[in-house]
Amino acid sequence: MTTMKTELENFQAQQLPQLNHYLESYLANLRGEQTLKDAMSYSVSAGGKRIRPLLILAVCSEAGRDLDEGVYAVASSLELLHTYSLIHDDLPEMDNDDLRRGRLTNHKKFGQAMAVLAGDGLLTTAFECIGKADLNGDTKSKLMTALAVAAGPQGMVSGQVADIEGEKKHLTLRQLQQLHQRKTGALIDYACYAGCVLSGLPADQQEQLHRFAAAFGLAFQIYDDILDVVATKEQLGKAVHKDQSENKNTYPGLVGLEGAYQQLEEAISQAKDSLAAVRELGLKTELLSGFLDYFVRRKNE
Amino acid sequence: MTTMKTELENFQAQQLPQLNHYLESYLANLRGEQTLKDAMSYSVSAGGKRIRPLLILAVCSEAGRDLDEGVYAVASSLELLHTYSLIHDDLPEMDNDDLRRGRLTNHKKFGQAMAVLAGDGLLTTAFECIGKADLNGDTKSKLMTALAVAAGPQGMVSGQVADIEGEKKHLTLRQLQQLHQRKTGALIDYACYAGCVLSGLPADQQEQLHRFAAAFGLAFQIYDDILDVVATKEQLGKAVHKDQSENKNTYPGLVGLEGAYQQLEEAISQAKDSLAAVRELGLKTELLSGFLDYFVRRKNE
Repeated sequence: MTTMKTELENFQAQQLPQLNHYLESYLANLRGEQTLKDAMSYSVSAGGKRIRPLLILAVCSEAGRDLDEGVYAVASSLELLHTYSLIHDDLPEMDNDDLRRGRLTNHKKFGQAMAVLAGDGLLTTAFECIGKADLNGDTKSKLMTALAVAAGPQGMVSGQVADIEGEKKHLTLRQLQQLHQRKTGALIDYACYAGCVLSGLPADQQEQLHRFAAAFGLAFQIYDDILDVVATKEQLGKAVHKDQSENKNTYPGLVGLEGAYQQLEEAISQAKDSLAAVRELGLKTELLSGFLDYFVRRKNE
Repeated sequence: MTTMKTELENFQAQQLPQLNHYLESYLANLRGEQTLKDAMSYSVSAGGKRIRPLLILAVCSEAGRDLDEGVYAVASSLELLHTYSLIHDDLPEMDNDDLRRGRLTNHKKFGQAMAVLAGDGLLTTAFECIGKADLNGDTKSKLMTALAVAAGPQGMVSGQVADIEGEKKHLTLRQLQQLHQRKTGALIDYACYAGCVLSGLPADQQEQLHRFAAAFGLAFQIYDDILDVVATKEQLGKAVHKDQSENKNTYPGLVGLEGAYQQLEEAISQAKDSLAAVRELGLKTELLSGFLDYFVRRKNE
């Protein structure tokens, strides 16, 4: 029996090879030390779902914007930045992980010094990648600034600090949500924002897409917490049951597994409401709706 | 007997307090985790010579450009980025240093995880700081892109990789110069470039200032190598004689101490020639000349 592919699945099948090609060529063309480039490419080419860049491409596509070099540059830049955060998060002084996306983590493969530098290199290259894109100066400046805010001490880096410090204490559900809003939500929100800026969407549509991003980002993190409990190492390509052993604050830990599923459903429902509002404002949302299938399907696996 | 202050010394006395104030307020106003902000501020406020931001301010001043908020933002951003590189360079997996600018290094004070994150935060904030500046979008995009190129895998990060990998092998003088051109030279070159862009200087002046920056950056690194041999820990505020013990490739190691002084003189002489060319093109150079006194004076201490 064959299953019908959703619009997002078709879109992914079309876009991912091109996105991966863009990423690989961009890194290959950098004039830098080969060992460093190898370490950077190793983690970028390890694959992963590419959800963040796909979100940028999807918003642009819904808005009818040409998926040209400028859009690919911005989408790739976000994946470079996301990959840096994974490399540094996996370091022995952080989460001390040996496996990521089914492969040895960067420091296990290249050593700790090179992993720090590969992360630094990817973070910096993310900005370069936008800067070199075929877009006007105002757009690039706006996107680089928003990326820095989302990824920096007002966003992702503070989320990571809160995560590490949280291991020493018991967080409330509200504090856990704030932590995740920064650690995971900020980049997902940036992805939607970048799509809006690239497509020149009006403020009301931007606002609803921002709400969608917030709910989707939350769902994404709750689901990640759930998977750590219910999935196997083979399914995830990384160690499981780590959260509990490291005393991490998680949704299943705070509200139980059933409670976590319930929170997940609520977040998905909020995301759907925002998409309905986006549709009322005249934008297509088939691709964006597809991102929500991600949770439902895997939950029923 | 009192000594006459040079123009650069007067300029420094005027500008440094304002620059430090800008840096401190910028960091204090970030809405992020307090521990992270403390770790970031700790290393930024440890002082140091602020040579890179001063170079930006000096080029703007020679060009008669108002030293307004935009200029301070760009100058501060470079110091944030430079500080990130020091924090990561000092990590146990890198140079493993305990002292920096006369204080405990960041990881000795805040732990290794926080030091990685404080570095990540400062690097990201450097881009944010330009992005939020009161400058037009084109200028900001140009500067953020140039900063990323100078600091990333095509510049400083590759220099650091070459430095670490160089410990395992004997470099030629040419290879050592290339290493330093990336590790130290790239940011100094960026400082002059940023001053030129902020001041709207014409291409011929930019080209000569670029030559000046290259020679000054080289002199700076040779001098740093020399100091590691001849200075005391108290004078430098960090460990000395480390290069030899770590098998680092240095100018004194490659060409002897006298040979290193000779290379220093040549680099200074090249820098002076470039400044003479800048003057012929109609720009003042008193402040920039002052940067070269830095070597001569301390050499005779």
